[in-house]
Amino acid sequence: MAEYVKANNNLEELKDLIQKKDDAAITNLVSPLHPSDIAKLLTSLEDEERAVVFGLLPPEAASNVLLEVAEKTREKLIASISKAELTEIVDEMATDDAADVIAELPHEEAKTVLEGIGWEESAEVQKLLKYPEDTAGGIMQTELVMVNEDATIQETIEQVREKSEEMAHIHNVFVVDGALRLIGLVPLEKLILTKPHLPIKDIMNNKPVKVLAETDQEEVARIFQKYDLVTLPVIDKDERLLGRITIDDVMDVVEEEIFEDFYKMAGLNTDERVLDPPARSFTMRFPWLLINLATAFLAASVVKVFENTIQTVVTLAVFMPVVAGMGGNAATQTITVVVRGLALGELELRNAKRVLLKNIAVGFANGILIGAVAGIAAYFMGVNYMIGMLLFLAMIANLVIAGFSGTIIPLILKWYKADPALSATVFVTTCTDVGGFFSFLGLAAIFIKYGLLL
Amino acid sequence: MAEYVKANNNLEELKDLIQKKDDAAITNLVSPLHPSDIAKLLTSLEDEERAVVFGLLPPEAASNVLLEVAEKTREKLIASISKAELTEIVDEMATDDAADVIAELPHEEAKTVLEGIGWEESAEVQKLLKYPEDTAGGIMQTELVMVNEDATIQETIEQVREKSEEMAHIHNVFVVDGALRLIGLVPLEKLILTKPHLPIKDIMNNKPVKVLAETDQEEVARIFQKYDLVTLPVIDKDERLLGRITIDDVMDVVEEEIFEDFYKMAGLNTDERVLDPPARSFTMRFPWLLINLATAFLAASVVKVFENTIQTVVTLAVFMPVVAGMGGNAATQTITVVVRGLALGELELRNAKRVLLKNIAVGFANGILIGAVAGIAAYFMGVNYMIGMLLFLAMIANLVIAGFSGTIIPLILKWYKADPALSATVFVTTCTDVGGFFSFLGLAAIFIKYGLLL
Repeated sequence: MAEYVKANNNLEELKDLIQKKDDAAITNLVSPLHPSDIAKLLTSLEDEERAVVFGLLPPEAASNVLLEVAEKTREKLIASISKAELTEIVDEMATDDAADVIAELPHEEAKTVLEGIGWEESAEVQKLLKYPEDTAGGIMQTELVMVNEDATIQETIEQVREKSEEMAHIHNVFVVDGALRLIGLVPLEKLILTKPHLPIKDIMNNKPVKVLAETDQEEVARIFQKYDLVTLPVIDKDERLLGRITIDDVMDVVEEEIFEDFYKMAGLNTDERVLDPPARSFTMRFPWLLINLATAFLAASVVKVFENTIQTVVTLAVFMPVVAGMGGNAATQTITVVVRGLALGELELRNAKRVLLKNIAVGFANGILIGAVAGIAAYFMGVNYMIGMLLFLAMIANLVIAGFSGTIIPLILKWYKADPALSATVFVTTCTDVGGFFSFLGLAAIFIKYGLLL
Repeated sequence: MAEYVKANNNLEELKDLIQKKDDAAITNLVSPLHPSDIAKLLTSLEDEERAVVFGLLPPEAASNVLLEVAEKTREKLIASISKAELTEIVDEMATDDAADVIAELPHEEAKTVLEGIGWEESAEVQKLLKYPEDTAGGIMQTELVMVNEDATIQETIEQVREKSEEMAHIHNVFVVDGALRLIGLVPLEKLILTKPHLPIKDIMNNKPVKVLAETDQEEVARIFQKYDLVTLPVIDKDERLLGRITIDDVMDVVEEEIFEDFYKMAGLNTDERVLDPPARSFTMRFPWLLINLATAFLAASVVKVFENTIQTVVTLAVFMPVVAGMGGNAATQTITVVVRGLALGELELRNAKRVLLKNIAVGFANGILIGAVAGIAAYFMGVNYMIGMLLFLAMIANLVIAGFSGTIIPLILKWYKADPALSATVFVTTCTDVGGFFSFLGLAAIFIKYGLLL
């Protein structure tokens, strides 16, 4: 596993060898590297150079590298090789990985590859392709060690021996009845420590944690964390064993789900990656900016109502973005904590009222202090002291609005089964923009009416 | 493991039993639940009720529950029991968990507990307490199966048998030489599949992946993901085996690190949790808001420079927050993708220039389109069409600024070994606020000067 050498700055050397077409030297340079290091090297190469190096990799290394590179690079690499080569590479993969790769192929090519790999693996992969990719069925693999309930420990060990060549981490043996229903689970250490002639039934855990294939992957991740699992069996409605999920796949899910939340909060398409080409990033970011523009115009129309007020005291225009901006900052703080609480299951509807009141209180307290500092600072900038007073009052109002909307909007979305993270940019900052302009300029209009300003 | 029953809405029932002081019934209700479900139930109780239920748990369950609850609740629970009870509970824990709990205790109490638990465990825990909590040493446990290189497979299996009672997941056996230096690793399945009289040396992987105790936990998580590990040995500078890290601890690290990035981006203290009391949330959010206030005033002072311009054309005040706000949104998009790319190692200094140019290009393209829509929308709101033109031009300028600063500032922070996520609210939105106001009002001043506006 760790017989790989470090990938030191061999990019220049590699480019040089590619130019010289020295295939043997390229193979010597690349083959001792870990697949994820090869993947990194490939990402730094030009399309043509990349195809050369990838074409020289043996099928096993090529299959590992293909799973490590980003989606765009994967597509290019696949396009650069023949269907026969691709088939050989997919044949090396575990069923879950093979299904992921085949799902991305055009229909014709997918068919060719499925026909090319062993019929047994092909059947398994086709079964996996039926499950949506964000469910337990979509992330499980069919490689596992399964024995009948009547097997002895010795027979079970034989099964482990047979399977150990084709699969990486075994961890557990699953016990099924005559109808292939999951009835138990045995960790490997138990196999070592018990007399070989005993029936496997005697040492199995007969109430293993398990999930239905339809279970959402986020729920799967939570089950892994709750029970500190390393592998989890997946069953169908009739309790039949379909496959297993291993923890390395779950790690990816956990990362993906958290990033997704924050991506949505920032108004980003969850597929966007830092190395995407500009055109792709542009088309993914534009719609969100357009929605934000609509909400910005909503806020602007509030300001428009008060044009006369601003005309009377033009200094108001200097400070109104301060009130709105601070509301936006406080709202971002609130919503980030709320979305995290919802994701971790700490915040639920039963304690929602407490959290709501708390965030209002925090907004009020911060409003008083931040408002006071802002008011005093404005005074020292040499403006009418009543503008400082306005800043103080409007800041309290807007930070309370931030605490309220930053809590209630994600909760409402959750209640209606929408994604609570979706709300940050769109709804909440609209609330604080509108609230900030309205409270600051509205109060100013009242002050002016009663002769307190000017 | 899964012999737990589901925690159905038994909160009311539990509260009822506590009031009736029916200890036997409480135990009956709680003991079949999974520790994390008990932890959840406890969180919903009042302090006194919680202490009653916790006091009734047997030491093993109590130790698991203590590890599942939030830090604040843990402190209260520990305060509610005697030192003798606490010692018994800590004695049940794995060394890494025991060290985490003891690290939070006041000095005197920590000493008592350390003296109370077995001297062997106490020595191990004291060793662990020396490592910073965010390093490999801080998250490792000392429970592991270790054999000398001269051992046979049969002797190794005996070691596994001895240890299997006191530790949860074994996964691997570690092989050491006479000076306790790590020289190899054997996965459990290999033990099953080989003849018992062979020396362990024959079947070990003699180049196992390993880390130094000082390694940062983020780096540890990356190694786990790169090599698809389930457990990782930790060594000191002399290659001596100190402990092992298991994947369940790494899952927590991965979650924590991602959340931390986004917390920092939102201007939040990374310790804040949704159920923290208001006073705690207030004191943690206030300093960040104060820093933001300073930057908001910086932006306001730019507006102040253009007070005369606004006095001349007051409608400018309506649209200037639109330009600044859209810049902020575009900057948040950019920085989120950049921080994720840095966290995943996809963005490095060698491809930084490409990403920078790309984000400027994306800003420019979005600026043209969003600016055009904004300009046309302003025109339909009935304002001078030259204000629409101003909006168009200023939007392009500010979205380019957003793409530039949203990329370059995290990179500069990374370059200076600071945290790239820290920059979002503070630096980048200051750039887009100042940039937005300056470009919009500055252009307006020029338009007015040349008689294009009014």
